[in-house]
Amino acid sequence: MRLRNKPWAEPLIKANPEWIVTDPEKYQGKWQERFPKVAPLYIEVGMGKGGFVLAMAQKYPERNFVGIELQTTIAAIALKKQLELKLPNLQLLRANGGELSEYFAANEVSGIYLNFSDPWPKKRQAKRRLTYPTFLKQYAQVMQADGLLEFKTDNRGLFEYSLVTMNNYGMDFAGVYLDLHQDLEKNAENVMTEYEEKFSQKGQPIYKVEAAFTKASH
Amino acid sequence: MRLRNKPWAEPLIKANPEWIVTDPEKYQGKWQERFPKVAPLYIEVGMGKGGFVLAMAQKYPERNFVGIELQTTIAAIALKKQLELKLPNLQLLRANGGELSEYFAANEVSGIYLNFSDPWPKKRQAKRRLTYPTFLKQYAQVMQADGLLEFKTDNRGLFEYSLVTMNNYGMDFAGVYLDLHQDLEKNAENVMTEYEEKFSQKGQPIYKVEAAFTKASH
Ligand SMILES: C[S@@+](CC[C@H](N)C(=O)[O-])C[C@H]1O[C@@H](n2cnc3c(N)ncnc32)[C@H](O)[C@@H]1O
Ligand SMILES: C[S@@+](CC[C@H](N)C(=O)[O-])C[C@H]1O[C@@H](n2cnc3c(N)ncnc32)[C@H](O)[C@@H]1O
Repeated sequence: MRLRNKPWAEPLIKANPEWIVTDPEKYQGKWQERFPKVAPLYIEVGMGKGGFVLAMAQKYPERNFVGIELQTTIAAIALKKQLELKLPNLQLLRANGGELSEYFAANEVSGIYLNFSDPWPKKRQAKRRLTYPTFLKQYAQVMQADGLLEFKTDNRGLFEYSLVTMNNYGMDFAGVYLDLHQDLEKNAENVMTEYEEKFSQKGQPIYKVEAAFTKASH
Repeated sequence: MRLRNKPWAEPLIKANPEWIVTDPEKYQGKWQERFPKVAPLYIEVGMGKGGFVLAMAQKYPERNFVGIELQTTIAAIALKKQLELKLPNLQLLRANGGELSEYFAANEVSGIYLNFSDPWPKKRQAKRRLTYPTFLKQYAQVMQADGLLEFKTDNRGLFEYSLVTMNNYGMDFAGVYLDLHQDLEKNAENVMTEYEEKFSQKGQPIYKVEAAFTKASH
């Protein structure tokens, strides 16, 4: 997803430092201070317009969430929604998910969500995929050993690639779903993202994998 | 697949010991003696009527093959086809794939094929699935460390289960394909099985995984 930069986006972000962070290195190891209650911390990398992370924060008030987005305008769209809801257990972060280990301390994160990440289909673009080994290494460095990485996508090529790289990295699969919306049991607790609404309406299968770094080298 | 036992099946098998083995323990470590040429040995577990393994033996004359089937009548149907073709690099075996380590010596097998294995969908039937850990252990015991287990199926539940068990067993994925017949590159060299013809005609996606026991405990 690419959006033209809107002139209002950067000023809105700068005006709301209590809801959106742009200097995450400052909070490494101290994210809990940004929430009213200490609680397990879950992050989404590439939240887009934030529909998923906002809904998760409402559904699980006993968890803290950080929604991360690289693009200023898109992060600002998510911010607008949070300024209406003011969910106490949600912080936003405009930053690059490829540098997570500079933003979070080891074991600071209890779970990581990747939803409909950009597929970067060409071979030479592989290193930009959020499941490329350098990204997995970042996740491993900040997440508890038993924490789950949960990845959903409609993109077959990206999912095939991700199953192989996650397996080769030594991650342990807890569950694989090749048509999530047909899997009634799993789907009952599923929170949809903006992309998921769009692609599942077209009848495309939604893929999901849940995996931990239990045995993988951290 | 269940077939009523045909009265001609057992006598046909007994009459053709040069093409079909029923006492595999005798050949443990000595399978090469049953072929005119010494060559890497590939086996299919649950060959059904044998279409795949016969076609593979024709396509790859520089490899030796053993097609394994549990049910007498089905094994006899495959035998009939082999009695017409008399492929020198193919032997059939009427036996239980769950006891492979009694039939083959360590490292005797270069590759293993599982095609459209019975799904056994109920949880309490899981241990009959050909990708249940006890079966994987048998494969690991007879296959070279860099040999590939290649598994194809149309059954989503069985495939999801198999990705998880193979990953948890410590196998290394070499490739995952979630719609094999749409993957033009991979499909060009694909040899179809009887079940594959049937299910792909209905437009169902065919799933495939290729994995090795490289790092897994043997
Ligand atoms: C295709 S959109 C999906 C948005 C949302 N997760 C959904 O499912 O509707 C992917 C988003 O990831 C963001 N993104 C891509 N690479 C990123 C990175 N390295 N760090 C943070 N965000 C990233 C993009 O800017 C884009 O907004
Ligand atoms: C669904 S059929 C598929 C046949 C064929 N592979 C195909 O793709 O057309 C599965 C076959 O596996 C055989 N089978 C099941 N369990 C087996 C075992 N433990 N050892 C050997 N064969 C087995 C069944 O008898 C049946 O013929």
